[in-house]
Amino acid sequence: MFSVTVRDHMMIAHSLRGEVFGPAQRLHGATFVVDATFRRAELDEDGIVVDIGRAAEQLHAVLAELNYRNLDEDPEFAGVNTSTEALARVVADRLVSRIEAGDLGANARGLAGIVVTLHESHVAWASYERTL
Amino acid sequence: MFSVTVRDHMMIAHSLRGEVFGPAQRLHGATFVVDATFRRAELDEDGIVVDIGRAAEQLHAVLAELNYRNLDEDPEFAGVNTSTEALARVVADRLVSRIEAGDLGANARGLAGIVVTLHESHVAWASYERTL
Amino acid sequence: MFSVTVRDHMMIAHSLRGEVFGPAQRLHGATFVVDATFRRAELDEDGIVVDIGRAAEQLHAVLAELNYRNLDEDPEFAGVNTSTEALARVVADRLVSRIEAGDLGANARGLAGIVVTLHESHVAWASYERTL
Amino acid sequence: MFSVTVRDHMMIAHSLRGEVFGPAQRLHGATFVVDATFRRAELDEDGIVVDIGRAAEQLHAVLAELNYRNLDEDPEFAGVNTSTEALARVVADRLVSRIEAGDLGANARGLAGIVVTLHESHVAWASYERTL
Amino acid sequence: MFSVTVRDHMMIAHSLRGEVFGPAQRLHGATFVVDATFRRAELDEDGIVVDIGRAAEQLHAVLAELNYRNLDEDPEFAGVNTSTEALARVVADRLVSRIEAGDLGANARGLAGIVVTLHESHVAWASYERTL
Amino acid sequence: MFSVTVRDHMMIAHSLRGEVFGPAQRLHGATFVVDATFRRAELDEDGIVVDIGRAAEQLHAVLAELNYRNLDEDPEFAGVNTSTEALARVVADRLVSRIEAGDLGANARGLAGIVVTLHESHVAWASYERTL
Repeated sequence: MFSVTVRDHMMIAHSLRGEVFGPAQRLHGATFVVDATFRRAELDEDGIVVDIGRAAEQLHAVLAELNYRNLDEDPEFAGVNTSTEALARVVADRLVSRIEAGDLGANARGLAGIVVTLHESHVAWASYERTL
Repeated sequence: MFSVTVRDHMMIAHSLRGEVFGPAQRLHGATFVVDATFRRAELDEDGIVVDIGRAAEQLHAVLAELNYRNLDEDPEFAGVNTSTEALARVVADRLVSRIEAGDLGANARGLAGIVVTLHESHVAWASYERTL
Repeated sequence: MFSVTVRDHMMIAHSLRGEVFGPAQRLHGATFVVDATFRRAELDEDGIVVDIGRAAEQLHAVLAELNYRNLDEDPEFAGVNTSTEALARVVADRLVSRIEAGDLGANARGLAGIVVTLHESHVAWASYERTL
Repeated sequence: MFSVTVRDHMMIAHSLRGEVFGPAQRLHGATFVVDATFRRAELDEDGIVVDIGRAAEQLHAVLAELNYRNLDEDPEFAGVNTSTEALARVVADRLVSRIEAGDLGANARGLAGIVVTLHESHVAWASYERTL
Repeated sequence: MFSVTVRDHMMIAHSLRGEVFGPAQRLHGATFVVDATFRRAELDEDGIVVDIGRAAEQLHAVLAELNYRNLDEDPEFAGVNTSTEALARVVADRLVSRIEAGDLGANARGLAGIVVTLHESHVAWASYERTL
Repeated sequence: MFSVTVRDHMMIAHSLRGEVFGPAQRLHGATFVVDATFRRAELDEDGIVVDIGRAAEQLHAVLAELNYRNLDEDPEFAGVNTSTEALARVVADRLVSRIEAGDLGANARGLAGIVVTLHESHVAWASYERTL
């Protein structure tokens, strides 16, 4: 199994609901350094998993939808906790939609799976992994 | 599959038995930067894998049992090589005991697995991975 | 010249005023990974620059005043841009006040200077450096 | 499952064929920081996955075959794109040959699998994973 | 003293002349992860050292002149060793020209100095520092 | 001013004397990831600060004198606390002796200064800086 990973980041404000979150129930923020991993059983005819330039572009486009925003005001997240792990899934699912729409190129439809990791600090990160 | 990882560290002395270890047969030491990853198929009702604050606390407590010690004098390790990979298992198993005892909260009993990685330097690390 | 550095982090929301900030004029947030460096010409009688445990504690206390908050609502920052470089100075100045108050121990009054670096992402950071 | 990882690097020149590569079709170069992970279900009689000293030596030997070279002139890669993912497989396969030849010690024949990751920058990396 | 740093990278081929370079006399390559630090005694009226967006853009533009190239064929480097430290100076000097030309904004003319660091691997890097 | 830095590491056991050290008064250990920086006003005739291969070799030789040892038993450190900052000075001073003895080559005598940083974990490090 092969994989290729590209890294980018976003900076958002949000708050979390539930006693378990303690002071993170207040409006605060985070830089998420985001790693998107694309997996594939065999390389395509160019000898790659995915066009790394396009992968970086599409990850950047997905993050741009969230970047520099207060997620508490985004209707998509109404009633949902935007925990690091939940956001990892949002980014992964949006990348999958773009793969299926052909935005990463025709060959990218041969991808086997995707993993998205959001680093919220130097001591904590979360991932979501799914097949395609 | 979702995961959450928290990072902490411990500083220990030890020696290793067996010709394969060369100069590491002498009493020396290591800083282990420790990553504990908690895995779960679906998020709980708070939208998380595990309470990250409690996860960090419990990892810290497990490492405190070993931190600032000479492992050669710990009766638990009598006759056992405290290699990086063996210590990764010790940390993982102790975290699992705490999960089973409810120390990470009732929801943590829904965890699917755990991975513990010990970084012994910038050029070497070891992991142990198990299901729950 | 000797120095000792300790690292911690904080997660805040804020917005920045001025066209130069583009989308960062919207309410968003950041994780700041914070390095505080303490400098000293000669080691003290214990052979150290500063008690590293106390240094970490005091840095944590300074960051706790800002952590998990919306800085736009903090009266201390009324009319001031909480840019990464400006916050580096805030953290440094507050650490200096604590040093002068004796919170890092009597020996810490022999420190020569301090540098505070705030990492806002894997590709951008800012520092403030001053003498004591 | 246990694993041990060692890190080293190589510095090569190459070019890539295919429109998808854009400016990387020109002769350029890369530093690849290489992580080789060795996996094993149970530890051997010394309590380890593999002799970490030998693992580092063998990884270094494999990289030395490629290091400080223009891969476009290496007959082994004639007609093949030396993409990061393809090179990850080359390194992994050569390590497996050495394991099978006994170069990592007799015990290393009990390894279950190997993963090789090549970091081409702070924002992109690729892996190849195989069983043994 | 304040500073702001932005990070980017470039991937080049080159060779070095002189026995001291051993195998690096052969055509090979490198990824240089490049940190550009801008220093200033006091913040400007926006409360910043430099517009971080523009700083990143200008660093990217400077690196684009070198990126994905064989430096042995660049007439600017005829008869000159493109060592990591020499390239750090090239990047710094080109950034200074852009600052002087106003490409980082009018306020950037108030900068006090610049430091450029090129990381050639996880175990080696070089810097060049100059005043403005 | 130019600089070149090389990174290596050592793994030692030791204990520290003085109440200020708390649990670190017990015999424990550390991995020190060591960065040695060599500074020089102008590049030499090869266009470098120092032969990076020789610099790495000499740093390795200096660390080999301490590596895999219990520093409490080294007569050189009798009555001295082997704190991270004190060890940074030991490594720096020993490198300077080697520079003066010509071990880094004749040109290395033109070096202006040296900085040695010992990272004891991902959240703490210490440096010693001196002129030549």
